[in-house]
Amino acid sequence: MVKGRRALVVFSGGQDSTTCLYWAMQNYEEVFTITFSYGQKHVVELESARKIVSLAGVENEILELGAIFAGLSSLTDPQQAIPAGDSAGSTELPSTFVPGRNILFLSLAGSRAYVRNCDTIVTGVSQADFAGYPDCRAEFIANMESTLSAGLDRKISIVCPLMHLTKAETVELADTLPGCMEALSHSTTCYNGAIPPCGACNSCQLRAKGFAEAGVVDPLIKRLSNEGSPAPKVVADAGR
Amino acid sequence: MVKGRRALVVFSGGQDSTTCLYWAMQNYEEVFTITFSYGQKHVVELESARKIVSLAGVENEILELGAIFAGLSSLTDPQQAIPAGDSAGSTELPSTFVPGRNILFLSLAGSRAYVRNCDTIVTGVSQADFAGYPDCRAEFIANMESTLSAGLDRKISIVCPLMHLTKAETVELADTLPGCMEALSHSTTCYNGAIPPCGACNSCQLRAKGFAEAGVVDPLIKRLSNEGSPAPKVVADAGR
Repeated sequence: MVKGRRALVVFSGGQDSTTCLYWAMQNYEEVFTITFSYGQKHVVELESARKIVSLAGVENEILELGAIFAGLSSLTDPQQAIPAGDSAGSTELPSTFVPGRNILFLSLAGSRAYVRNCDTIVTGVSQADFAGYPDCRAEFIANMESTLSAGLDRKISIVCPLMHLTKAETVELADTLPGCMEALSHSTTCYNGAIPPCGACNSCQLRAKGFAEAGVVDPLIKRLSNEGSPAPKVVADAGR
Repeated sequence: MVKGRRALVVFSGGQDSTTCLYWAMQNYEEVFTITFSYGQKHVVELESARKIVSLAGVENEILELGAIFAGLSSLTDPQQAIPAGDSAGSTELPSTFVPGRNILFLSLAGSRAYVRNCDTIVTGVSQADFAGYPDCRAEFIANMESTLSAGLDRKISIVCPLMHLTKAETVELADTLPGCMEALSHSTTCYNGAIPPCGACNSCQLRAKGFAEAGVVDPLIKRLSNEGSPAPKVVADAGR
């Protein structure tokens, strides 16, 4: 716990940002969250976000960005299907890449951190398990941090607790954070926004693989099963 | 003219971005413009933007950002008055500073440049006459350029033709660009969005000083006067 330090968590309601939220609650004196509504197909994650911030007892602001990324990605274009399976090893950017999404999110987080006097932004990007998105890499984050500090004339750190963790290690971290597993039982990961999760999209597969490798039952699957939902059919691992 | 090069101009409808638009039309083969509606009090600049892109014959996208900066600055807060006069020499940031505005605008311009295959973003920021805003300085622009290239995995240059020009030099540049003076007669500079311009805000004063020092009559004032509007009462220069 860093006395007097205030962190703003970029919070989607997904697995990684939920883990980061609970990590931040252990490490900073005051924690705020910011969530973006940007026309994502999996808008159900906003419901997850609302539920989880209420469990965590932290303040949340949902920023409505409208149709700002409409049509730019399979994540935001109703005409494009979310691809099934794992895109690791491909030299092309996946169709789920939203050009400039994290640049935009961190820009707005910087603006809000400035106004709320937070010295730190916490975000759940990781380059370990999935380096397909350039705006999840450490090099980008270092650049973004310099940009915020230069543009706002104030040092604002961007901390990425998961940057070098595999999904399995992220699950192990979550397992040590009080309350995090319960919160994860309400998180949304599926790019199709399906409940129960589709099990077929890259995002579902990475999550399933992480919990399997960590030897932990996914609390979301447990909750849904307790509530009588059928378990998702996770498509066979694409061989990573 | 750089053959095959495509530029996206961050275009507000104001004096500087109008000059940059006409500069870009001389220097790039294809030119697009992007304009932001962000709850600015001087929303009348969007009318200027529409008129000028129509004169210039270039494509324009107006991105609606809603109330994203509501209350964060005297530029976006109906409760705060726009200060009169010149804030040069002050060690505090002026109340018209919108924290993160240019970071956000350039982030979104990067996203749009990527999608439109533009290798260059042109923006009218300048640190010569007014260095009060940290996100108008060359150091910030260099950082932002690295951030865009890292986050988008593609080199996108940010070109600032006015970075080291005084307002008078900007007027002199505009005077050499075909069509620019006519376009400037429709531009909006006044932070209060007044027509005729209030003459009292910092932005009006800088514009008046620039035209006066360049020995050029402001075509906006000329047009308004031809149309029978009273000339703005420009408050005495604050002594720079």
